Amino acid sequence: MAKQLIECVPNFSEGRRQDVIEAIVKPFKEQKGCYLFDYRADEDHNRLVVSLAGEPQAICDAVMAASKVAVEKIDLNTHQGAHPRMGAVDVIPFTPISGISMEECVELSRDFGKRFHEELNVPVYYYEDAAIRPDRTRLEVIRKGQYEGLKEEITKPERHPDLGEPKLHPTAGATVIGARKFLVAFNVNLNTTDVEIAKTIGKRVRSSGGGFTAVKGIGLALEDKGMVQVSMNIVDYDKTAIYRALEFIRMEAARWGVTVNGTEVYGMIPIAAMLDSAAYYMQIDDFDPNQVLELKLLELMREEN
Amino acid sequence: MAKQLIECVPNFSEGRRQDVIEAIVKPFKEQKGCYLFDYRADEDHNRLVVSLAGEPQAICDAVMAASKVAVEKIDLNTHQGAHPRMGAVDVIPFTPISGISMEECVELSRDFGKRFHEELNVPVYYYEDAAIRPDRTRLEVIRKGQYEGLKEEITKPERHPDLGEPKLHPTAGATVIGARKFLVAFNVNLNTTDVEIAKTIGKRVRSSGGGFTAVKGIGLALEDKGMVQVSMNIVDYDKTAIYRALEFIRMEAARWGVTVNGTEVYGMIPIAAMLDSAAYYMQIDDFDPNQVLELKLLELMREEN
Repeated sequence: MAKQLIECVPNFSEGRRQDVIEAIVKPFKEQKGCYLFDYRADEDHNRLVVSLAGEPQAICDAVMAASKVAVEKIDLNTHQGAHPRMGAVDVIPFTPISGISMEECVELSRDFGKRFHEELNVPVYYYEDAAIRPDRTRLEVIRKGQYEGLKEEITKPERHPDLGEPKLHPTAGATVIGARKFLVAFNVNLNTTDVEIAKTIGKRVRSSGGGFTAVKGIGLALEDKGMVQVSMNIVDYDKTAIYRALEFIRMEAARWGVTVNGTEVYGMIPIAAMLDSAAYYMQIDDFDPNQVLELKLLELMREEN
Repeated sequence: MAKQLIECVPNFSEGRRQDVIEAIVKPFKEQKGCYLFDYRADEDHNRLVVSLAGEPQAICDAVMAASKVAVEKIDLNTHQGAHPRMGAVDVIPFTPISGISMEECVELSRDFGKRFHEELNVPVYYYEDAAIRPDRTRLEVIRKGQYEGLKEEITKPERHPDLGEPKLHPTAGATVIGARKFLVAFNVNLNTTDVEIAKTIGKRVRSSGGGFTAVKGIGLALEDKGMVQVSMNIVDYDKTAIYRALEFIRMEAARWGVTVNGTEVYGMIPIAAMLDSAAYYMQIDDFDPNQVLELKLLELMREEN
């Protein structure tokens, strides 16, 4: 059986003090089975965004260790930054990549939340697929008013945390933990300067406009390129494969005689999302990801570790 | 810098004695940095085909250790099988996958050949991209007459080995070593029962028929499916991307109003060959394989080891 692989992108409220940033990141560099893809500290946001992948247990151990450092070193009472936040450890999303279902990832995030609360005494809210209350799927809703506002609001029953007393940690606030699907950012550039066409297609492709359930989209101008773009987030590539969104946009654009100039995958993408579209266009029957040499090698290496 | 990754598919002349097969395969299972994908022993062929990938040095060490076992245990004088062969270790092709050029892989195979000859005293012929004589690129040419025929023929200057005296090893014969590109087997099924259409397109798509330089192709009937197939070997997917062969076949088939029903990737395929075609159809600009989460993870794991 293939080992479980998850992604995790914890966000910490520190983007300025280099020593604190390095201390938070240290466990991610040292924990066996946890692979640090990237970490970006933004001074204006005063926020650190870490990108990890690996085995669930290793990821949890490393995030726990890093969170201890963050809770110890960050005081939300003096923290200022352009990005909304309510905790020293602001948000921890777990994302299934392979060998693990969303249900298992939800369970993982709930267990991690308990451990997090017990070890750090920071109240926890569960969000996205791990939300316990239906009104708490969205991060923005939970984080409304930020640290400063929630200090008082948390006493109201509708703002009580899912774990812990209705009282923020005196310096570390509260933390949002959950599970969500991998988000693929996919942009489609159109051979026109008419931004209204991109805006109209952006509306039609997205779920709120009657388009695909797993697509969020907007239209915008790429002025330096003399083109327009339909910029999308595909929030569940299993449900809405990339090629479907792309071909839908191509079809809509054809209405104005406009064609697709090129596309862009922004940031990381799981191989399944690429192979799925490749298999469609190449009309491959019964393609098995294990036929891909590098994926087979990855599996063998992970079994060995 | 990404670590070098090669594939190697050594062929041994033993497909019946289970203890010998296991003894040959043992080093592949034990050598760190060498990953055993698959091994298939065929009784009729009396031959063992092993599929490996990993770091060049680890692969070389493991193939050397396995070859020692094969040379010790196999006697070509009593060996019989349906598959042509001339050595206990019959052929060892090295294939670049990533982080290594064909030129480097040729050098690797030449160095390995020297070591192989010195340690085992078996004459060596270099083939494919590692051939030293231009008439020795093809395995069939070098292996002509097999073990029995070559025993005498080897004394003729045109059959002299590239390394060693013009004399076969008394029990292990001679070994063919070289470097070649990864071979992608890609089949295209057409919605017709007229096999002549597949045969005609097979001719047109292949290099010998004026088609693509890196494509070998034939047409055949798939009688149980009521379809015909253009079956291809793409011997250099960097030169002739899969999508080009596919779209060429689609265009030719349209001449008879025939369409592509489906395709098949047979066996293993390097991810680059898939991503290349995916990027074409999805019109992705500047796609970097490091954006693929699993490939990034593989790179980090290999750096760690």
